[in-house]
Amino acid sequence: MSRLVLKFGGTSVADAERIERAAATIKSEVDAGNEVAVVVSAMGSTTDELVDLADALLPGQIDDGEYDIVVAAGEQISAGLVARALKNIGIPARSWLSWQLPIKGVGTPARARIESIETDGITQGFERGEVAVVPGYQVLLDDGRLSTMGRGGSDTSAVALAGALNADRCDIYTDVEGVFTTDPRLVAKARKLDRITYEEMLEMASQGAKVLQTRSVALAMKLGVPLHVRSSFTGAQGTLVSDEENGLEDELVSGIAYSRDEAKITLVQVADRPGVAAGIFGPLADADVNVDMIVQNVSEDGKFTDLTFTVGRDDADRAVKVVETALNDVKYDRVEADPKVAKISVIGVGMRSHAGVAHRMFQALADKAINIQIISTSEIKVSVLIAEEYTELALRTLHTTYGLDDV
Amino acid sequence: MSRLVLKFGGTSVADAERIERAAATIKSEVDAGNEVAVVVSAMGSTTDELVDLADALLPGQIDDGEYDIVVAAGEQISAGLVARALKNIGIPARSWLSWQLPIKGVGTPARARIESIETDGITQGFERGEVAVVPGYQVLLDDGRLSTMGRGGSDTSAVALAGALNADRCDIYTDVEGVFTTDPRLVAKARKLDRITYEEMLEMASQGAKVLQTRSVALAMKLGVPLHVRSSFTGAQGTLVSDEENGLEDELVSGIAYSRDEAKITLVQVADRPGVAAGIFGPLADADVNVDMIVQNVSEDGKFTDLTFTVGRDDADRAVKVVETALNDVKYDRVEADPKVAKISVIGVGMRSHAGVAHRMFQALADKAINIQIISTSEIKVSVLIAEEYTELALRTLHTTYGLDDV
Repeated sequence: MSRLVLKFGGTSVADAERIERAAATIKSEVDAGNEVAVVVSAMGSTTDELVDLADALLPGQIDDGEYDIVVAAGEQISAGLVARALKNIGIPARSWLSWQLPIKGVGTPARARIESIETDGITQGFERGEVAVVPGYQVLLDDGRLSTMGRGGSDTSAVALAGALNADRCDIYTDVEGVFTTDPRLVAKARKLDRITYEEMLEMASQGAKVLQTRSVALAMKLGVPLHVRSSFTGAQGTLVSDEENGLEDELVSGIAYSRDEAKITLVQVADRPGVAAGIFGPLADADVNVDMIVQNVSEDGKFTDLTFTVGRDDADRAVKVVETALNDVKYDRVEADPKVAKISVIGVGMRSHAGVAHRMFQALADKAINIQIISTSEIKVSVLIAEEYTELALRTLHTTYGLDDV
Repeated sequence: MSRLVLKFGGTSVADAERIERAAATIKSEVDAGNEVAVVVSAMGSTTDELVDLADALLPGQIDDGEYDIVVAAGEQISAGLVARALKNIGIPARSWLSWQLPIKGVGTPARARIESIETDGITQGFERGEVAVVPGYQVLLDDGRLSTMGRGGSDTSAVALAGALNADRCDIYTDVEGVFTTDPRLVAKARKLDRITYEEMLEMASQGAKVLQTRSVALAMKLGVPLHVRSSFTGAQGTLVSDEENGLEDELVSGIAYSRDEAKITLVQVADRPGVAAGIFGPLADADVNVDMIVQNVSEDGKFTDLTFTVGRDDADRAVKVVETALNDVKYDRVEADPKVAKISVIGVGMRSHAGVAHRMFQALADKAINIQIISTSEIKVSVLIAEEYTELALRTLHTTYGLDDV
């Protein structure tokens, strides 16, 4: 007997038929003798619709405490429906809303974090053979009000619940078959990975692979909760995310991720003197602009240099304004923003102990005449910024270079 | 300064624009110096959609505790949205979910009654100039779970909250201008009533006028909460429902109600002996069939009689089966069900002290050759059953007979 948390995303509970399919999946785990807690997202596009309504009535404000009341209703509906679908096929079940368990949170409205989960209600239900169905994405704050956790919070709810329940595994049911070596929509030879480490998954998620939210992976790593990313439609084995390294497969590189969500900003011919970088990135941080890659080369003449960094594409215009203001008393030629860039990342725990991963990447791209604009590396990742139009070619080339093609 | 409870029905909060209109209405009461608590229904057809989903996944069962979780989400969404719309026009507001106040209830899931309302949160908000927005239709049960109160429960929530807050008035904003002397869709000369007593409203509501739920009127009468039924679209004065009699207007009859929701069941030539009636209506009660009018005449020969009664139209077939079983060892000729009937009721507190109201009704119908099938009377009401096809004619005729026409 295992104790499992099963998480069903919005597409997996999008209508009555899919909820029945999810219930059948849950039943098979119960029939196999497991204790099961379920975490659900809102149905299909429900959250988007509720967000739109909330925004229509108080535009641009999500931290007023009422936004949470509106959007949290989506997960509540799913939880009740999944519990009913389970009863309909003979599986005892009950929903547990965040304030009923409770799942306590801290932080500001609409952006709360889970602080603690009281699981007595669920474990007592386990003793009666009952499945617990918990709406994801919401917590009870200290002031007795509900708060949501930011988009994608349901993955994090599932991982946190798995941790609190000491679950053997957290299965993330979604609309893809698992984690792929790269985006199968762009690279036909992309291959589903059977296993991946937390760190690799973390890099994949933060580099644009949308299968799991970054914070849920980070939490799973911290809590040591093995994640199983799998399709709610095929029922097949998906990808296990855990701390075991890919020893058997012995791959240097696990996957190639990409992101077209960033824009490149370049300060051309800025005075090369101490404090300039700090003078720019301080105001950007104050303005809540997330900066990803930063590159500054040694200046040739010791007087002027080019400084380049990337920000979220939606933040580009705002970032330019912040920088121009910050450079008020600094000499510079101009600030250029370029949204037509893509970030390509090669990810793999294996590259820790192998030199040459980065070199092979640069060589492979050079062979295809793809110019590298910026390079950034971490222990298990090499990222480059290239012109957006080369995205597919770069992904396919690197996928082959590192032997990831499905043959 | 008055303390008011304003209740907005589903059509009054059906979309963002209507919610903004409701917020403007609330603002005008706040600007006039009043303390305001708002009770809201679910948006438009939301409840129907949620009920359909819940029924698809566990057909025919509403008392499982999860049905409530699903459908209560509709009012929760409205509450958050109305609070946001108020803040957007500068009115401090916050939502209070039933478990937050709490509004405690008793009874079975999906059919709970309000037991008590803790109003401290709301009255403390009043001191800060804050409008409270409360989702109707839901209560917190002793076991810590949510329950709903049956369809139309939001009217009852509003009245109960007005009682608990000692409010000066409960305004019911809806999609009609008020309570009419009869259905304006059937009688062009129908006239909006400025005032009506609780008892008259109770009879109007239970006789088919759908403006207010019967139980909310009964509760308002018990708590002495004046109700103001008015349109959320015109903002005009509506109908005040209170315990003051219509002294000034001195009308015998306030309104003519009708219902086409009933079916007539006749036991033809049943043995006229003691215990037969009890032997029929006992089993009908056990089968949860509501019987409305009952007529039995003295038999001519002392041996056989005809017994006629009415039940809800949806229950007619079931009622016939129950009766046939119950008559197992009683001699009778046959049981006939006739759904093509209408109940017409003349209602008015004034008729208490005036003879002749019933006589004028029967004469007016006779003058139009409308046959009266059954008669039933109470202190402030005379109801007759007629063939359904005469409904409009009977309403128009009686409306004129009692001087109710809008001139």
